[in-house]
Amino acid sequence: MTRPMLMAELSRSSGVPVATIKYYLREGLLPPGTATSATRAEYGEAHLRRLRLIRALLEIGEVPVAAIGTILAVVDDESASVHAMLGAVQYQLGPHPARPAEPDQDWQVASREADALIAALGWTVASSAPARTLLVATLAALRRARSAPTGPGLRAYAEAMATLAAAEVTSLLPGNQHGPTPGSPEVPGSPEVPGSTRVALAESAVVGMVLHERILIALHRLAQEDASSRYFA
Amino acid sequence: MTRPMLMAELSRSSGVPVATIKYYLREGLLPPGTATSATRAEYGEAHLRRLRLIRALLEIGEVPVAAIGTILAVVDDESASVHAMLGAVQYQLGPHPARPAEPDQDWQVASREADALIAALGWTVASSAPARTLLVATLAALRRARSAPTGPGLRAYAEAMATLAAAEVTSLLPGNQHGPTPGSPEVPGSPEVPGSTRVALAESAVVGMVLHERILIALHRLAQEDASSRYFA
Repeated sequence: MTRPMLMAELSRSSGVPVATIKYYLREGLLPPGTATSATRAEYGEAHLRRLRLIRALLEIGEVPVAAIGTILAVVDDESASVHAMLGAVQYQLGPHPARPAEPDQDWQVASREADALIAALGWTVASSAPARTLLVATLAALRRARSAPTGPGLRAYAEAMATLAAAEVTSLLPGNQHGPTPGSPEVPGSPEVPGSTRVALAESAVVGMVLHERILIALHRLAQEDASSRYFA
Repeated sequence: MTRPMLMAELSRSSGVPVATIKYYLREGLLPPGTATSATRAEYGEAHLRRLRLIRALLEIGEVPVAAIGTILAVVDDESASVHAMLGAVQYQLGPHPARPAEPDQDWQVASREADALIAALGWTVASSAPARTLLVATLAALRRARSAPTGPGLRAYAEAMATLAAAEVTSLLPGNQHGPTPGSPEVPGSPEVPGSTRVALAESAVVGMVLHERILIALHRLAQEDASSRYFA
């Protein structure tokens, strides 16, 4: 624990300008400090941790301020599971594909294709998951563009992602922040996670989800370039 | 081969409005038809194919009109390899991360990390590839956000992507548009590809690159949700 800080020190320690901190206080994203006089308040370690989470959501996750409150409410609600918290983070990350008001034939077939895949893999995912809508929208677009190559098949993508995602998620487990190796995740029961750890976990989750996805995209494209050089140069 | 079409029929067959076709003609994206009088020209199969490619680049690839000319120039230059053509498509797809004018310590370490990975995998990729810059920028961001989980390790992502990308690229091979299965790609020599096939290949490439990447992102998130439900629900 650090000693209590005044606003100016909180700003220095966090690197967040005073005006921005005051804006977060007004928006209710940051809880008020402990008032020590009519015009002074003291802030602590919890404020620093929460500022780090807010910055990660804004700068790395590009989550709009209005949606940050939704995430923080789940982080603060200790009766909500860590799974609910990670879901709250992921569901606020873009893109946010829209479901069509009247799904056409391609959409309906794509939707059944997605459900069949998820069932075959035995995955537990909400039918309202934005990523499911993204998958259906993309499969429908593939059907519309009939010239599209078939590629390695949906199941091959899904199995590769399952292996990577399991290693990512287990690396979030408390006490496992610098350890996991693929293929050998430690699988404890549903862990107890205290409030301060929940904030740190949410920060790790947003950083990890966004940056691992970018690594995936970058390596996918580099791998395409390498494969293309072998087959088409 | 279809019979020659007038502008109105070209519009009907392609689903592209006449005003838009005229715009593409003015911008030089579509070659002029064969003039049959001072005010009439006839269009053929090649115009239809090229309109499909332009629409795929605009609507699926979200490539700006100005950048489409760059891609079409490589498609039309039959002395350019198919590898160069696929590169032209991929390099115009966003995001376009900027290299910093003065790379900081994190960027320099990340850059060496990316080079070491690419060398260890024996990948042939240009050092100017936008995806390499995206990888370095992301690794540098991970270093800055010290709380980030380590995840499954770069090499695990890269190897998974290599398998998928090889199957995607071989599915583009002429005569292989509906066939490949992962793990058993057909590997012919560098194929001869005629002009009309180049246009169709470029269209398949943009559709495939963009939509496969979206499938990857969607399935990655769904796999995270499933893993999270197992460890944190």
